Amino acid sequence: CNGLARTRNQDFITLNIGGVHVTTTKDTLTKKEPGSMLATMFSQSEDNQWFSRVDQTGAYLIDRPAKYFLPILNYLRHGQLIIDDSVNPAGVLEEAKFFGITSIQPRLEQLVQLNVKPTDYTPLT
Amino acid sequence: CNGLARTRNQDFITLNIGGVHVTTTKDTLTKKEPGSMLATMFSQSEDNQWFSRVDQTGAYLIDRPAKYFLPILNYLRHGQLIIDDSVNPAGVLEEAKFFGITSIQPRLEQLVQLNVKPTDYTPLT
Amino acid sequence: CNGLARTRNQDFITLNIGGVHVTTTKDTLTKKEPGSMLATMFSQSEDNQWFSRVDQTGAYLIDRPAKYFLPILNYLRHGQLIIDDSVNPAGVLEEAKFFGITSIQPRLEQLVQLNVKPTDYTPLT
Amino acid sequence: CNGLARTRNQDFITLNIGGVHVTTTKDTLTKKEPGSMLATMFSQSEDNQWFSRVDQTGAYLIDRPAKYFLPILNYLRHGQLIIDDSVNPAGVLEEAKFFGITSIQPRLEQLVQLNVKPTDYTPLT
Amino acid sequence: CNGLARTRNQDFITLNIGGVHVTTTKDTLTKKEPGSMLATMFSQSEDNQWFSRVDQTGAYLIDRPAKYFLPILNYLRHGQLIIDDSVNPAGVLEEAKFFGITSIQPRLEQLVQLNVKPTDYTPLT
Repeated sequence: CNGLARTRNQDFITLNIGGVHVTTTKDTLTKKEPGSMLATMFSQSEDNQWFSRVDQTGAYLIDRPAKYFLPILNYLRHGQLIIDDSVNPAGVLEEAKFFGITSIQPRLEQLVQLNVKPTDYTPLT
Repeated sequence: CNGLARTRNQDFITLNIGGVHVTTTKDTLTKKEPGSMLATMFSQSEDNQWFSRVDQTGAYLIDRPAKYFLPILNYLRHGQLIIDDSVNPAGVLEEAKFFGITSIQPRLEQLVQLNVKPTDYTPLT
Repeated sequence: CNGLARTRNQDFITLNIGGVHVTTTKDTLTKKEPGSMLATMFSQSEDNQWFSRVDQTGAYLIDRPAKYFLPILNYLRHGQLIIDDSVNPAGVLEEAKFFGITSIQPRLEQLVQLNVKPTDYTPLT
Repeated sequence: CNGLARTRNQDFITLNIGGVHVTTTKDTLTKKEPGSMLATMFSQSEDNQWFSRVDQTGAYLIDRPAKYFLPILNYLRHGQLIIDDSVNPAGVLEEAKFFGITSIQPRLEQLVQLNVKPTDYTPLT
Repeated sequence: CNGLARTRNQDFITLNIGGVHVTTTKDTLTKKEPGSMLATMFSQSEDNQWFSRVDQTGAYLIDRPAKYFLPILNYLRHGQLIIDDSVNPAGVLEEAKFFGITSIQPRLEQLVQLNVKPTDYTPLT
C-alpha cells in the first residue's frame, strides 16, 4: 500500500527533518536554487548517500531542525522570505548556510543584526 | 477499514498540506468562493490532476505551508479573517494569492503594510 | 482492539476538530452548558447526524479550528476562561458562537474590543 | 509487541492528556509531591478508577489540557517552575489546583496577579 | 519492516523525549561534547541502562521536556546557541545541566539573568 501510494505521488517527497515530517515536491527542492546543496541532495542524477537514508515511512532523514527550515522551504515555494516574530532569524540563517541557499543569506544576516538586543550579547565578565 | 470510513464521511476531506493533516469539508473549500482556484481544485466536475495525488491515508497532497493556510480556511468556514499576533500576515497573503481567494487580499495587503517594521526592510548597503 | 478500548473508556470522547485530535469526556461537553449546541451534539438522546461522522480512529469529525476551541473546552472543564496572549480572542468568540456557549460570549466580545489595535482596522481607502 | 514494550519500559508512563501524549516516569509523578492528587492517581497501591482508563496505545486518559500541565510536570522533574511568556500562568494554576500540587500554588497565584492587564478585567458595563 | 529500516539508518537515532519524537544522529549526540552525560548515554561502549528503554517504535525514552532540549540539540548540530523569544532560557539551562552540556551553561545563566523581569521574582509577602 505504501509502495502504491509512493508510485502515484512520485512528485511529492516527505522529509523527516529532526523528527518532523514535512511534505513538498522535488521541484520545490531542486528548481529554485539548482546549485544549492539542497538541490544536489534531491537530484536523482546524483549518486549520493542521502537517498539511502529513509525512515519507516519512506521519509528522507535529515539531522536538522524543521522549525528553522520551514521559512526556507516557503521561500523556495513562492520566492518570499517570511519569518514570524516568534522565530529567531539566526536559526533560519544557520539552515540557509547548511543547505546552501545563498540568495537569502545577506537578507538573513541583516535580520539577525536587527534582531540582536544590545543586552543579549554582552561579553561574559 | 479506511475505505469504509471514507464512505461514511464523504463530506469530510483531509488535506496533507506541507506535511500537516488538516480536515475540513468539501463545502467549506468550494462554496464560499466558488470561483477561486481552491474551489476549482476540489470541484468534482473538474477533471484535474489534484485528485490523483493522495498520501497513504487518502489525504490530498498540497505543497504549501499549513500555518498560513489555516486563517484562510477559517475565513471560508465562518467569514471572519482572524490572524494571531504570532502569524505573519505576509505568509497568509501568499496563500490567498496561490489559492485565489481574492476577497481577502486587499485586507491582507493592508495588514502586511501595517506589520512592516521600518527597520526591517532597509535596503542592503 | 479499538472496539475493546472504546468499550473500556466509554466516558472519553475524541474529537477530530479540523484535523487535530482532542480528547475529553462526554460530561465535559454536555454538563456545563446543557442547552448549548455543543451539548446537543453529544447528547445520546439526540438523533442527529453528528454521531455518524467519525474518522478511521473513531474520532468525531468537526469542521472547525482546534486552536480556538481549546480555551472553550478548558472553560467547560474548570469554569475559567483563560486565553494565551498568542491566541486572538476573536477566534475564540467565533467558536463560542458556533457551539452556542453563550455564557462566555459577553466576556469574549469585551476581550475582542480590547484587543483591537486602532491601526489594524482603518477602512480601505 | 505493545505488551512486550510495556514490560521492558515499566518505569515509563504515557499520559493521553486532552489528546496529547506526554511521556514521563512513575517516579516523577509520585515522588516529588507524594501527597498530591496526581501522586495518588499513579500510586499502584491505590485502588482507583484511573488505571482502568487507557486509550488504544495504553496511555492513561486525563481530561485536562496538556499545555498548562507541562510546566507542572517539568517542576516535578527538576524542581524549577518555568513558564514561557506565551503561556498564561492562570492556566497553569488551574492544573496545579486540579492535580493538588500545592507547593507551587502561591507562586502561581502571584504570577497570575502580575500578569493581569488592568484593561483586561474591567467589569462589563 | 521496522527492523530493516533501522538497519539501513543506523546512524540516525530517534528520541522519545517527554512524548515528542526527535530524530538526530549518534554523531550529533556524542561528538560535540564527548565528555557530557548526553554523549555517555549514547556511547555504545557504555554498558548503561538507557539502551534498554525504548518505546514501541524503537525511540529511546527520556523523561525530559523536548521544547527546552531542542536548542541544545541545535547547538550540538551547528555550534550556535539560538533561542526563540517564546522559549524561556531558564528551561534550556535546566536541560543543559541535566545532560551535562557545560560549554553553554555560562551563556545560558547570563540569558536567564537578563530575562528576569523585576516584578516576576518579588518574594512572597
